[in-house]
Amino acid sequence: MATKVAVIGGAYTKFGEHWDKSLRDLSVEAGALALADAKLEGKDVQSLYIGNMSAGKFIGQEHLAALAAEQAGLNPIPATRCEGACASGALAFRKAIMAIESGRYDIVIAAGAEKMTDIKGEVAVSTLMGAGDQEWESAIGLTFAGLYALIARAHMSQFGTTREQMALVSVNNHKNAAKNPKAQFPFEVSLEDVLTSSLIADPLRLLDCSPITDGSAAVVLASEKIAKQMDNPIWISSCEQASDTLSLHDRKSLTEMNATKVAVKLAYQQAGLSPEKIDLAEVHDCFSINEIIAVEDLGFCKKGEGGKFVEQGKIAIGNEKPINTMGGLKGIGHPVGATGIRQIIDLMTQLRGKAGPLQVNGAKKGLALNVGGSGATSVVSILSNE
Amino acid sequence: MATKVAVIGGAYTKFGEHWDKSLRDLSVEAGALALADAKLEGKDVQSLYIGNMSAGKFIGQEHLAALAAEQAGLNPIPATRCEGACASGALAFRKAIMAIESGRYDIVIAAGAEKMTDIKGEVAVSTLMGAGDQEWESAIGLTFAGLYALIARAHMSQFGTTREQMALVSVNNHKNAAKNPKAQFPFEVSLEDVLTSSLIADPLRLLDCSPITDGSAAVVLASEKIAKQMDNPIWISSCEQASDTLSLHDRKSLTEMNATKVAVKLAYQQAGLSPEKIDLAEVHDCFSINEIIAVEDLGFCKKGEGGKFVEQGKIAIGNEKPINTMGGLKGIGHPVGATGIRQIIDLMTQLRGKAGPLQVNGAKKGLALNVGGSGATSVVSILSNE
Repeated sequence: MATKVAVIGGAYTKFGEHWDKSLRDLSVEAGALALADAKLEGKDVQSLYIGNMSAGKFIGQEHLAALAAEQAGLNPIPATRCEGACASGALAFRKAIMAIESGRYDIVIAAGAEKMTDIKGEVAVSTLMGAGDQEWESAIGLTFAGLYALIARAHMSQFGTTREQMALVSVNNHKNAAKNPKAQFPFEVSLEDVLTSSLIADPLRLLDCSPITDGSAAVVLASEKIAKQMDNPIWISSCEQASDTLSLHDRKSLTEMNATKVAVKLAYQQAGLSPEKIDLAEVHDCFSINEIIAVEDLGFCKKGEGGKFVEQGKIAIGNEKPINTMGGLKGIGHPVGATGIRQIIDLMTQLRGKAGPLQVNGAKKGLALNVGGSGATSVVSILSNE
Repeated sequence: MATKVAVIGGAYTKFGEHWDKSLRDLSVEAGALALADAKLEGKDVQSLYIGNMSAGKFIGQEHLAALAAEQAGLNPIPATRCEGACASGALAFRKAIMAIESGRYDIVIAAGAEKMTDIKGEVAVSTLMGAGDQEWESAIGLTFAGLYALIARAHMSQFGTTREQMALVSVNNHKNAAKNPKAQFPFEVSLEDVLTSSLIADPLRLLDCSPITDGSAAVVLASEKIAKQMDNPIWISSCEQASDTLSLHDRKSLTEMNATKVAVKLAYQQAGLSPEKIDLAEVHDCFSINEIIAVEDLGFCKKGEGGKFVEQGKIAIGNEKPINTMGGLKGIGHPVGATGIRQIIDLMTQLRGKAGPLQVNGAKKGLALNVGGSGATSVVSILSNE
């Protein structure tokens, strides 16, 4: 029987455009903050995993895990980069959990980092298409906004989801981000702001889209033996991963993500929980439509009713199922490799009761959904403070 | 106590310039061959890890693990890419082992793949520099041949290692590759051939350097429970990983690799073995000098005596410590993400007694050393047929 694993500390850098900091600076900053939060030192860390999607293309640097270990003074511990597009952070998190479950290590760092603003915006957009199918999607000029626009159109057609319902996702997430000092966009937006923002890929507008961001995040994980000696460990009830086709055209449905459905089913089983027991969730709102699909696929409402769920305000703090309580990808920003770890940190903060004006009162169970590309990789993690 | 883990099958594609096959074709081919070797089907596989260094830069494709799972019909199993430069394959192997040790899975594929010949040679060389330090090495124009030339000069200066001794590494490995039908260069080279080949980075010449290669490799790993039901499982006695600085200038020594020394010490401890007990080894001869350093760091001879060890023919099949018995990176080729898995397959073949004209008679224990970059990541695996 494998040990239980807990998150015993975590932190992320300010997300934004860091023209004065390199990827290595950001990685070390998050790691140091996470260790301080866990009241540990570098010498206590036995292994390191880092999620990163495309440092090779963004800044010409592969081999990032060894570099992060070096820069943080952690050599010679094993250091491994995990990549699964925008789910890279959650993959690093899951591999770190399994490293502890294997019995090899007691204290492991799972980090994520991406430096996206050192190249031109259009090059960043084509780099991100590395998450899609190069032969069938990138090569014909599709972008991720284009892919999610196809998904949005299908959802609108099939379920009557409205432009306004999608916009309300961004309104909710920006409202939360306004109170998160680490957010790239710490301000509110109105429904009208979203609906009148520039058209990117019809029906998606600028304020439906998560931004290009620099940032890093890190959590410290520990075995049960170590975690029990710590203040306020947050237990990992489950962490499950699944895959689907890269190309949208190969999917059975455009309006649900099978990888998410498979992963969340396993995650609920493993945690012995049902969707009603989840007090809050961090989901992958890379585009507003994806939060609507997420609340459906995670079982928070019936299929096709995600738009109404959002419209009825159920995702707001204080209501039925608070979603992206710190601002989500839309408000906090989306340094792709870091996002999966940032979600875990936001859950940790909530489950510790330390979310200040964004606190979900009495939160005991939190769920994170990190999605790679248009859904070819999904990771669902459930955390608990009990 | 974690389960024991065994390699129960494995195969690699022909290594070479595959202008008629894509990375996805190669990945599926190796996976299918490996499953056939293990007498299993795709439905038996529970999780997938793939090592790949730079598909983002080589072919514009990240998110490779989900793509490989899709192309092989393995969705929705968890699929994760691991990256640590030229050690990416061994990182995938090690994560697959830990996935089984965690108790989550019984049958896992560890693969590796790289498609390097779709871009111009000089672009491939700069892409490979992603394995070094972008700010301190790549940006000033260093190449990997240049980095290893610095290492070679230091070794020659410090220990009197000769040009001829380095050349004899290539002679040995090509002699073996000549009998390996999967090798990119299945022919012998003479000492004179090496010594008179084009100068690349003094003192390294063309025939000291491993080539740019397309290829893929896959192994099937199983828990003890499953492996015991199989014919001829090859047991993983240990698999250990360590890290060092990316930049050469930050190392204490240019003539040894500390990551290798740390990893091999742990690997011998875990396996309860000493260097004398190893019957053959697959080591990382990306450049000839690195095989000389490897035999020293692995404890097969004293520090500084690696050149003599090679010169005395001790690395030949039939002699004291056969090295790179199937041809090594130099003779078989070096599709960077695949090499770490290819090494495991070559050990497996030897330990099964199926190496034909290249067989090391009575081989019971084999060791693989996969190195990332100029030594910032090292993974040492010890396999046994007992």
